Amino acid sequence: MKKLIVLGSTGSIGSQTLDVVRQHPDRFSVVALAAKKSWQHLVKQAREFKVEAIALLDDEAAFRAQEELQDSKIVVLSGRKGVESVATWGEADLVVSSMVGMAGLVPTLKAVQVGRDVALANKESLVVGGPVLMEAVAQNEVQLIPIDSEHSAILQCVTGEDPKSINRLILTASGGPFRTWDKKKLSQARANEALQHPTWEMGAKITIDSATLMNKGFEVLEAYQLFNISLDNVEVWVHPQSIIHSFVEFVDGSTLAQLGPPDMRTPISYALSYPERLPPRWEKLTLELMQGLTFEEPRWKDFPCLEMAYSAGRTGGTMPCVLNAANEVVVELFLKEKILFTDIPRILEKVMNEHTTITGPSLDDILGADDWARGRAREIGRACTKAP
Amino acid sequence: MKKLIVLGSTGSIGSQTLDVVRQHPDRFSVVALAAKKSWQHLVKQAREFKVEAIALLDDEAAFRAQEELQDSKIVVLSGRKGVESVATWGEADLVVSSMVGMAGLVPTLKAVQVGRDVALANKESLVVGGPVLMEAVAQNEVQLIPIDSEHSAILQCVTGEDPKSINRLILTASGGPFRTWDKKKLSQARANEALQHPTWEMGAKITIDSATLMNKGFEVLEAYQLFNISLDNVEVWVHPQSIIHSFVEFVDGSTLAQLGPPDMRTPISYALSYPERLPPRWEKLTLELMQGLTFEEPRWKDFPCLEMAYSAGRTGGTMPCVLNAANEVVVELFLKEKILFTDIPRILEKVMNEHTTITGPSLDDILGADDWARGRAREIGRACTKAP
Repeated sequence: MKKLIVLGSTGSIGSQTLDVVRQHPDRFSVVALAAKKSWQHLVKQAREFKVEAIALLDDEAAFRAQEELQDSKIVVLSGRKGVESVATWGEADLVVSSMVGMAGLVPTLKAVQVGRDVALANKESLVVGGPVLMEAVAQNEVQLIPIDSEHSAILQCVTGEDPKSINRLILTASGGPFRTWDKKKLSQARANEALQHPTWEMGAKITIDSATLMNKGFEVLEAYQLFNISLDNVEVWVHPQSIIHSFVEFVDGSTLAQLGPPDMRTPISYALSYPERLPPRWEKLTLELMQGLTFEEPRWKDFPCLEMAYSAGRTGGTMPCVLNAANEVVVELFLKEKILFTDIPRILEKVMNEHTTITGPSLDDILGADDWARGRAREIGRACTKAP
Repeated sequence: MKKLIVLGSTGSIGSQTLDVVRQHPDRFSVVALAAKKSWQHLVKQAREFKVEAIALLDDEAAFRAQEELQDSKIVVLSGRKGVESVATWGEADLVVSSMVGMAGLVPTLKAVQVGRDVALANKESLVVGGPVLMEAVAQNEVQLIPIDSEHSAILQCVTGEDPKSINRLILTASGGPFRTWDKKKLSQARANEALQHPTWEMGAKITIDSATLMNKGFEVLEAYQLFNISLDNVEVWVHPQSIIHSFVEFVDGSTLAQLGPPDMRTPISYALSYPERLPPRWEKLTLELMQGLTFEEPRWKDFPCLEMAYSAGRTGGTMPCVLNAANEVVVELFLKEKILFTDIPRILEKVMNEHTTITGPSLDDILGADDWARGRAREIGRACTKAP
């Protein structure tokens, strides 16, 4: 019986993780859960899976959950410290890290530091804290198993292969809802249009990041940390049908790919049972799905966030953290219709240009840079044109 | 230094094997070679790679080679026994079995019996002698590494995976030169038209087998023996561009595929260095290659050889041997324009219907069935309409 902790259990990945767990009551149990503020949903999950503890990042939400669970033995914690306590709670084998954004980094790190394997959906942990996290993973001899469909695809392709034989990683990208929009139309893109993702159902933040291609940029940064490969050897191909989830090219020129209908339960299931595979087949490949697959270069100029992520990765140090922090702020401004879609890269570029990179940063340096970047993004954002 | 023996070294796979060896003089040496009758080509190869022995199946050709090599220390052998001696010659680590047709079975078996790993391009060894060969492989604890692009693709996909987690194998097929021909046109197909393979450059016998889809049928039989999977779980998808070389679906619904431009040097290199991978990249995957890939059901009714192979596999025993032997005869008749393209399945069906299967056959039973089927195919072929 593998004991799980799920951070971000009420979100898209968290809920689907519990779907997989429901299929295998004989293999998995859940000991603790954490969420941002959806306390009613979390309380329901906590009762269903008979967990020992829950945490809510939001204090008010934690208070409500506490009231609701008065009759039970479930411990209710609150705030950042509460989430960190859940990440290191009791006895557990695997922590599913699926909180959204920077908030996922510290709990993920804490879980690794107490020797737990981590199934990682929170890409910020690697984008922002890559070197710190990877060092902790090595020191504590734990496994960091990606849940993102692209990185899961790569892991499946490289399993059983000598890491030195990897030549090139090609991440596929759906291209998002604005893939075919021209430059002028892009500047008028509204939040509700950006939220219409063509192939994947995901949360709001990641859906906007898909529309700007920043999500793919972060995945590039995630991949080069996770698979220890030069950024120059990580490519992105736009593949609107999202059937091939990524490619790995080896030194002999042979390429492997992982494919299937877009369903996150497949990579989640793989991460939970890795290196084993568990039935059921959530989805299967059919001849129909393989029709009309297309692949194209990203539109680098019209979607500059992708190149920015490469650039931040090449600079290294605190720069990816600054990009991520500023991005979290501007995406929220865009969702609130305070700025234009095309303001997103403009603001990010300004914040990056103003930042003096700290190389080999400590966790404190990272948290400091994060804080600074959020402040600057907010200031610059305030000065921007309000969206029509 | 890995010491190689190449059976069928003057053929398409054999020559390309030596191309790979030339790239890695520090990793591979060649101790012996065998061919059917191309003695001049074989003598040239023997001198270049400074081998210890060669064999020619054809006695007359062996005599010529002997004369030509009087000045050297290279031992020249002839006939079946000569080829078998080369398969078990001196000290060697890996025997590349790339002779064409039934002639490859016994030398391959002998190599396994003296404890040698085999890189297998001769699919008849598995189609005809599958149970006998696989038992010898298990007893002698040797590796049988496929060279066929489809089986190499499958091997690459399953490396590092639990064999029990394989759910379905999907072999891709180019569909051959007659993929889009209607029934009437097929009956008028000429040998020179059948020899125009759309994507792969291969020998004459295998190119005709590709046109009838018998080659794919044999590959299905090869795959189910090699990967120990039910025939019901081996499928064929026609994929005219030959970029995806096969798919493996696992029990969790995830599918892996191996892909690349059609170049046999990639699977040959993989078989020689397995489980390692060696540079150079013979070819690489490009965005251009990934355009317009299509996948379709085989035209079972118009290309009945594919279903015949499944049927022979389900019957088992000596039936696949009978199908293969009769097929070798009718393909030769077709190449000599003695029969029509559509006579090929007609004759094969008659021979199969007449055969009384021996289950659990010995090698002698197999050789007997082979002999009988050749005779019957020749007799029935003689009675057929002569091609226009």
